[in-house]
Amino acid sequence: MPRYRLVVEYDGGPFVGWQRQDNGPSVQGALEAAVQAFCGEVVETVAAGRTDAGVHALGQVVHLDLAKDWEARVVRNALNAHLRPAPIAVLSAELVDADFHARFSATERRYLYRLIDRPAPLALEAGRAWHVPVPLDVGAMAAAASRLVGRHDFTTFRAAECQAKSPLKTLDELSVAREGQVIAIRARARSFLHRQVRNMVGTLKLVGEGRWTADEVAAALAARDRAAGGPTAPAAGLYLLGVSYEARPSGASGSESR
Amino acid sequence: MPRYRLVVEYDGGPFVGWQRQDNGPSVQGALEAAVQAFCGEVVETVAAGRTDAGVHALGQVVHLDLAKDWEARVVRNALNAHLRPAPIAVLSAELVDADFHARFSATERRYLYRLIDRPAPLALEAGRAWHVPVPLDVGAMAAAASRLVGRHDFTTFRAAECQAKSPLKTLDELSVAREGQVIAIRARARSFLHRQVRNMVGTLKLVGEGRWTADEVAAALAARDRAAGGPTAPAAGLYLLGVSYEARPSGASGSESR
Repeated sequence: MPRYRLVVEYDGGPFVGWQRQDNGPSVQGALEAAVQAFCGEVVETVAAGRTDAGVHALGQVVHLDLAKDWEARVVRNALNAHLRPAPIAVLSAELVDADFHARFSATERRYLYRLIDRPAPLALEAGRAWHVPVPLDVGAMAAAASRLVGRHDFTTFRAAECQAKSPLKTLDELSVAREGQVIAIRARARSFLHRQVRNMVGTLKLVGEGRWTADEVAAALAARDRAAGGPTAPAAGLYLLGVSYEARPSGASGSESR
Repeated sequence: MPRYRLVVEYDGGPFVGWQRQDNGPSVQGALEAAVQAFCGEVVETVAAGRTDAGVHALGQVVHLDLAKDWEARVVRNALNAHLRPAPIAVLSAELVDADFHARFSATERRYLYRLIDRPAPLALEAGRAWHVPVPLDVGAMAAAASRLVGRHDFTTFRAAECQAKSPLKTLDELSVAREGQVIAIRARARSFLHRQVRNMVGTLKLVGEGRWTADEVAAALAARDRAAGGPTAPAAGLYLLGVSYEARPSGASGSESR
């Protein structure tokens, strides 16, 4: 039974999140419906990151098994045709080994969080960034962010619903930089706790406003208590940028993104 | 009667264009309704560029006269409050001299056109770029674009409805560059003919596909015939980036964008 790896982009706005749920349309549900419309098969798709409601993806990775050995390009094009008009696009499809697992094989996940600090509301960026009406001190935010990098118990930035076995995670990057009018926060780790990025961003925003110091952020981390952290940043600013996997000798698998 | 200059951002998607029309909501209509809601005055707003339906603006410039001498910051904030939830934002307001004219005083207009050449449809960029499903040759497009720069009769790229007195215009810049997944075409001139940018982009896209050469673009320009040019590129990829005015000694005028 051939396994396919998809790279998927979506606007999280209209969805209850990646995961199929009873309370509204999900990215997973839309994708599985497109598979069924394409080849009649009822499949279970697995994603690298189970993004929350409103969270976007530029490079979500998904795997699924199909009964028939379709050309990867056919799978990509057919799914895109059947996904229309949902704001979900299959950027590439690739035949992979049967033991590839989008979630468990992932060695790194990369997220981007976008803030725009200006008095005027967002017109073109509405639903695509966090609007903060006061100017933020990016240098102070970057300095505070560096205090969170490394291997720590991230309980302070962990949602109550988090299902991870351990709160210990290694954060490989948490950078803050101004890119035009956008303040871009980039986070990179093997894996994250539920809402970890948004909870860290909500805390860094307090630093940007001058309400918290970097020392206070370090103290909040050390407290290992969600109540010690800042509020959760809105979903609309968060993007799953990409997921990495260990390079491995690939057999007869063919990729199709072009 | 104090005159105000506004810099305005909007998502052109839901509008019939800048100009008030009978067939649907316009940016001008929404802005003038916000002025009336704010201070009760019925005003006529004037924009630097009368953008078509679906065309976006990151830095449209507008002027209007109010009876009362409001602080510029108050005007900006009140208009933004009353514009909600329309995707229009007043980025800044400034008190200007009574002879300032958003359209006639402009010395330069800058546009950006965004194309994305990939097989997959657009999810996050839907309505924000032109989706071209085949790879485009950016170098060839840039070389052809350079043939259009300078003072020319641009009849080949002029819409039939264009009201300009003369088809002679000086195009100061027409650059083509890949910026991430986006092909960005930047155009700069004192003024443009109606649909000139979109008609030039539609022609350059044929070059990118390998269907036209730079020489054929130059020949089309020389033909001074709209039928000799390529098709009109879709509105959704076009952004009015900004407008320049001659620097002049300002009196007691105060700006407020922060």
